[in-house]
Amino acid sequence: MKKLLIVLLLCSFSSFSQENDSLIIRKIFDEVLSKGEAYKTLTHLSKKIGPRLSGSEGAAKSVLFTKKVMEDYQFDKVFLQDVMVPHWVRGKKEEAFIEVGKQKIIVPIAALGGSVATATTGVKAEVIEVKNFEELKMLGTEKVKGKIVLYNRPMDATKINTFEAYGGAVNQRGGGASEAAKYGAVGAIVRSMTTLNDDNPHTGGMRYATGVPMIPTAAISTNGANLLSKMLKENPKLQFYFKQNCETLPDAPSHNVVGEIKGTEKPEEIIVVGGHLDSWDLAEGAQDDGAGCVQSIEVLRALKALGIKPKRTIRVVMFMNEENGLRGGTKYADLAKQNNEKHIAAIESDNGGFTPRGFGMVGTDTQIAKIVAYKNLLAAYGLNEISKGGGGADIGPLGQQGTLLIGFKPDSQRYFDFHHAKSDTLEAVNERELNLGAASMAALVYLIDKYGL
Amino acid sequence: MKKLLIVLLLCSFSSFSQENDSLIIRKIFDEVLSKGEAYKTLTHLSKKIGPRLSGSEGAAKSVLFTKKVMEDYQFDKVFLQDVMVPHWVRGKKEEAFIEVGKQKIIVPIAALGGSVATATTGVKAEVIEVKNFEELKMLGTEKVKGKIVLYNRPMDATKINTFEAYGGAVNQRGGGASEAAKYGAVGAIVRSMTTLNDDNPHTGGMRYATGVPMIPTAAISTNGANLLSKMLKENPKLQFYFKQNCETLPDAPSHNVVGEIKGTEKPEEIIVVGGHLDSWDLAEGAQDDGAGCVQSIEVLRALKALGIKPKRTIRVVMFMNEENGLRGGTKYADLAKQNNEKHIAAIESDNGGFTPRGFGMVGTDTQIAKIVAYKNLLAAYGLNEISKGGGGADIGPLGQQGTLLIGFKPDSQRYFDFHHAKSDTLEAVNERELNLGAASMAALVYLIDKYGL
Repeated sequence: MKKLLIVLLLCSFSSFSQENDSLIIRKIFDEVLSKGEAYKTLTHLSKKIGPRLSGSEGAAKSVLFTKKVMEDYQFDKVFLQDVMVPHWVRGKKEEAFIEVGKQKIIVPIAALGGSVATATTGVKAEVIEVKNFEELKMLGTEKVKGKIVLYNRPMDATKINTFEAYGGAVNQRGGGASEAAKYGAVGAIVRSMTTLNDDNPHTGGMRYATGVPMIPTAAISTNGANLLSKMLKENPKLQFYFKQNCETLPDAPSHNVVGEIKGTEKPEEIIVVGGHLDSWDLAEGAQDDGAGCVQSIEVLRALKALGIKPKRTIRVVMFMNEENGLRGGTKYADLAKQNNEKHIAAIESDNGGFTPRGFGMVGTDTQIAKIVAYKNLLAAYGLNEISKGGGGADIGPLGQQGTLLIGFKPDSQRYFDFHHAKSDTLEAVNERELNLGAASMAALVYLIDKYGL
Repeated sequence: MKKLLIVLLLCSFSSFSQENDSLIIRKIFDEVLSKGEAYKTLTHLSKKIGPRLSGSEGAAKSVLFTKKVMEDYQFDKVFLQDVMVPHWVRGKKEEAFIEVGKQKIIVPIAALGGSVATATTGVKAEVIEVKNFEELKMLGTEKVKGKIVLYNRPMDATKINTFEAYGGAVNQRGGGASEAAKYGAVGAIVRSMTTLNDDNPHTGGMRYATGVPMIPTAAISTNGANLLSKMLKENPKLQFYFKQNCETLPDAPSHNVVGEIKGTEKPEEIIVVGGHLDSWDLAEGAQDDGAGCVQSIEVLRALKALGIKPKRTIRVVMFMNEENGLRGGTKYADLAKQNNEKHIAAIESDNGGFTPRGFGMVGTDTQIAKIVAYKNLLAAYGLNEISKGGGGADIGPLGQQGTLLIGFKPDSQRYFDFHHAKSDTLEAVNERELNLGAASMAALVYLIDKYGL
């Protein structure tokens, strides 16, 4: 009987509590949807500052700007963390054409981040097209030597989640140059990572393997790749010319930007919510990852505006250098360890500011189960996909400290239309969708803060 | 033991069957995502034909075009259903300005569909602003007579589903003129039905009540409404001028367009999938409802391409005149009754071609439960919201015949950015999102055809 009573009491407490949570979550969404400031902040970041590649003037400006935004919101503490970042610059715009006899057809390319330049006179060679590293290996030095390799495996359009399609194609971009160099190629041209057929080259990071020559590598627009592939079938001996002027300068000083509200009961337990401030140099970086940055700031703004005083410390972090080094994320975790900080959870938004679908997590089963249990509170806001698997690049290094890593999961359909291309502008972001994402993250932060992990 | 065996057999049959269904649904999505033709058809409908208001040349062209598309796909049967439709025309573009002293500020308006014209010299009067009919009633004839009523209640941005916000504001558009006329108003200007602050007037249908004067009524852009409201606070005596040249012509002949694949086992049981072919005159009508039309055609194209021979008859219907009369939907149901046809289910796509979220249904609990049970097969495609409540305007009249009415439910966030405004162009539609919707509908048609209702 006593047991039953306790169970009943617990049930009624828990249902009261859920009702109460449900009301507060509703207030969070109301606040963000009617008074949200994320889009305004993003407008400045995209239109007044623009591209923010690590080490650039834009990156430096964005550090000062987001610090000021957080100071103006009067968060309890706003500070910078010093971090040295890679400093790659594109230099003068690339040139490229397909040459058949006397005909020259210009195609749009963009050097991949980290690539070396071509000779100042450019490089011109025959092209060998492959779909993957296995094909390249089969061709071997005999067929590849002295040529430019065209990597032309498209993202698989039949994948429902476009990140899966991206994951299935991106090794061409990341490792294609060094793989090609193993067999004596003189350059590597990579089909842009997008399911669109468009004329924008989509850039992105690449890395050279040690022990092989560093050959120049660039992304070509999907239309360009299709054209080149088609022409190769008709003229296997055609020549491809490209010239790029990029270089890697010495590492540059930069910063993570951190704002926090101190917890009232367990200030030593920290919940992080963040995005990355750097972007590729071709774009305004509105979706990648201006959206995640301004959403993260909005989380703290909204909680503060609603007078919610968290028990635990909530930190919003603008990570620097996700795109080509992850130095900010690494530094943040190093400092957390050094300072004996206890990060219970970290939420990252780096999949765009689209309509929310859920959260993907990396952590222990117990941690994950605790978050999955909030599904009934969050489903009304379209957050149906709350499950294992996900996280985020910048928060990744915190994983070793036992932190639950949570990736905000918006709808993925349009992300790669803009990703790392000049089309990633403010206009690619819908204000309501952006706000819904911020509110979703704020609701989850509220629940984690209240119930711990 | 025997019972157990039967249960075990049933379980294994059912799990085999589910596995099989799951494979076929995967094939449907693969087909549509990699070879889908909906976007191509929509491109023609939007860019070559454009606006398709009932009775217009565009509407007539779209009938012939979609009939031809279905004939080219060699559906078993393609035919037209005659229907007389209202024929309202906008005439020369509207003019409107706010007048304070010698200052005239031009604002963007668009006559509401069905409205009468102003006098050829326009109408100029003071403005009285209200948020709803109750406020209007409180003001009464004394305050309203001789004035122009500004209806300025915004769509509620805090609603997660924007259709709910629309439902909470649209009575101003539909009935505002007659309500205002009851108290002697000389015109009614209605805030556009969108959560955006933009310069596009969003038109839409309105109806005059009997027994009150028919006064001219127009939508004003949200920015225009905000400006007018602000200026009214400073100058309650300001004048508003507008002139519109619309008229209602005699009913015109038009058509529903129907294509079908005959069922192999139960041809007398019909499953309908459709959208409406007419659009407002200001726009290309790409989202409303070109998307629904081309998705519906794609359902049948994909099933046929995959060699799926339905047991039941599958019909794709392009309904005419959803926007200002619903004559096509009404006629379709009338003919179904007259011909003793048995429609077991009807699916309508008229909420835009955005990323799928689910299906909303109107029918018996048994019917609905049968569809809800497919959730586990459909959730992998983002179809999490399969529940009671929804349907569609054009299929509505079939409800009286016991047909299960199913509304395709895409994400709603961006729909009212474009709805009934000139911004509803092909560019507002994302090809992947459009395809996912078509595949979702095809998957559901496949299941309903296979298992019945």
